[in-house]
Amino acid sequence: METVTVALADRSYPILIGSGLLRSASEMARLIPARDLLLVSNTTVAPLYAATLHATLRASLPERRIVDVILPDGERHKTLDMVARMLDVLVANRFGRDCCVLALGGGVVGDTAGFAAACYQRGVDFLQLPTTLLAQVDSSVGGKTGVNHAGGKNLIGAFHQPRAVIADTDTLATLPARQLRAGLAEVIKYGLIVDAAFFAWLEANISAFLARDTDALSYAIRRCCEIKAAIVRRDERETGDRALLNLGHTFGHAIEAATEFRSWLHGEAVAAGMYMAALASHSAGWLDAASLARVRALLLRAGLPLAAREVSANEALALMRMDKKVKAGQLRLVLLKGIGSSMISADYPADALTSTLTAQMGS
Amino acid sequence: METVTVALADRSYPILIGSGLLRSASEMARLIPARDLLLVSNTTVAPLYAATLHATLRASLPERRIVDVILPDGERHKTLDMVARMLDVLVANRFGRDCCVLALGGGVVGDTAGFAAACYQRGVDFLQLPTTLLAQVDSSVGGKTGVNHAGGKNLIGAFHQPRAVIADTDTLATLPARQLRAGLAEVIKYGLIVDAAFFAWLEANISAFLARDTDALSYAIRRCCEIKAAIVRRDERETGDRALLNLGHTFGHAIEAATEFRSWLHGEAVAAGMYMAALASHSAGWLDAASLARVRALLLRAGLPLAAREVSANEALALMRMDKKVKAGQLRLVLLKGIGSSMISADYPADALTSTLTAQMGS
Repeated sequence: METVTVALADRSYPILIGSGLLRSASEMARLIPARDLLLVSNTTVAPLYAATLHATLRASLPERRIVDVILPDGERHKTLDMVARMLDVLVANRFGRDCCVLALGGGVVGDTAGFAAACYQRGVDFLQLPTTLLAQVDSSVGGKTGVNHAGGKNLIGAFHQPRAVIADTDTLATLPARQLRAGLAEVIKYGLIVDAAFFAWLEANISAFLARDTDALSYAIRRCCEIKAAIVRRDERETGDRALLNLGHTFGHAIEAATEFRSWLHGEAVAAGMYMAALASHSAGWLDAASLARVRALLLRAGLPLAAREVSANEALALMRMDKKVKAGQLRLVLLKGIGSSMISADYPADALTSTLTAQMGS
Repeated sequence: METVTVALADRSYPILIGSGLLRSASEMARLIPARDLLLVSNTTVAPLYAATLHATLRASLPERRIVDVILPDGERHKTLDMVARMLDVLVANRFGRDCCVLALGGGVVGDTAGFAAACYQRGVDFLQLPTTLLAQVDSSVGGKTGVNHAGGKNLIGAFHQPRAVIADTDTLATLPARQLRAGLAEVIKYGLIVDAAFFAWLEANISAFLARDTDALSYAIRRCCEIKAAIVRRDERETGDRALLNLGHTFGHAIEAATEFRSWLHGEAVAAGMYMAALASHSAGWLDAASLARVRALLLRAGLPLAAREVSANEALALMRMDKKVKAGQLRLVLLKGIGSSMISADYPADALTSTLTAQMGS
């Protein structure tokens, strides 16, 4: 087991990464002292791991009261209605401010359960138990919680840090290959924005990674968590360079919203978005052709999409203007100056954006 | 105009108290730099003051874009549905993270609008423009936002501090007498919990206060804001003595929930609750008979209720157990040791609570 700490003064918390953690009663006893637990999961993950987790939680503290909420699976269910359902269950069971919400699943489960925890009684504890690669490397860390709105992605939410993140790498064994690749998009993101050496490591080890080699997965998860923890520590509320973590996301969110959160996985949309960010950076003259080619090659080897032909460029642009990074009406983008070097800018040629959208999206 | 500061480091903000503030373009220009504004009010207050406020806001910055959301009036509309409606309007108008939500009205408007501001894009600015006595002395200050749930009062919400509170005392001229008395309950509360001299001032000046004497109102509002600001500064998240501000509220919330937020005003329920807290304190041997008599006399002179016969004692007790101050299943109450002296305790004789409920509530 490895531990990465997110250092946020009195809200600091550990990320535990390792095999067998969902079976570790000693870790659960240490990290989850609460008696009353709301266990949030989904219809895919619950049949695989909920019984194991229940047994471990009861072994760690026999008098636990555990109530389950099982959500339908998929990004389109990341809604305020699902959060309201969790709040109803918390109230119906008369859970007090000393209860704890557990999120067992991927990003949708973590974001919705975390937002319910943020709102219930103006904030109760919650723990992330991510079971997808994407959640283990990204969404479970850093305290962003929330839901989608028909008008755009993650428009409703709160900053609410978990008490701990427990990433049991054994759960990746049951992850569908498509989900693994989608998570890999966020892994590649960390290399692109701040860590050229990690990007090079991915170029050298992507085959082992996709073959689910334990050492390769563990190393990559730890490195991503270290990078994210360092960024969140510097800028918890995203007033500055935390926004770099959104490389590809402004494009990606538009793809997700335009397709009504149904056909694209978040990581797939981010992959196409990262390629578009790279292309726009190249058009603006900030990213050289060799680096652009490396981005393209790695995304292709990862089996990830580079374009979104079924979304029109005009609709995408309108949706991008709803992005939370818009300031004074100006669309700010995370752009690349090189592999491992990124910046947030509204000062790019307008043509660099429109030519990219035209090239990679539909008409 | 008087100014009280709520000192919370980088989230410090001013409370402005005075006549004519809703007409002050210079104050609006200084305190509301945002261009895009969501103005939340209700069907009672909007016809009285929304046009004035619109004019002042436009005079202070001509390019403002102001969108109104007018809620139905009343505590029973303090719901997640109303917050969802505000979020829909924010999204539909494509407001960015740099917008500002304005709450023009009483506690329900302030709590719901503040919660919408807390959730939209994980937090946008908001300002309180309280128009009731209760909102001016209590609910607009301190950053508690949220909504009710059928299972209990204020069970869903967030801590989200406003950028400023602008309390125009002219608005109290149109306040119905019943609302003025309800606000007075919270004024009396401040004297009871920490300020014996202020309680004595109220005993001496309650007639002038109820006659809406300008000096008496202004003095009382300022003193209440000073007391609340000092408590919130020490304990923003209510981990300690901020809970003293809930004197009477655990009883009061049960009355409100049992009557489905329809027949009792919040301040009326708090008044009956404060008397019950005083009675329980007396039964426990902590408050002497003379002090209890003073509490009773002042509440009666204020025209406030001391009992709630239409709510059964058993139902009240069940609802009180949903209170956010419950810890490890134990019901903690704010109790009195004297006029101006209070404490939070779970260590009272069980009989002191049950005999009080039996005496003041129905069977």
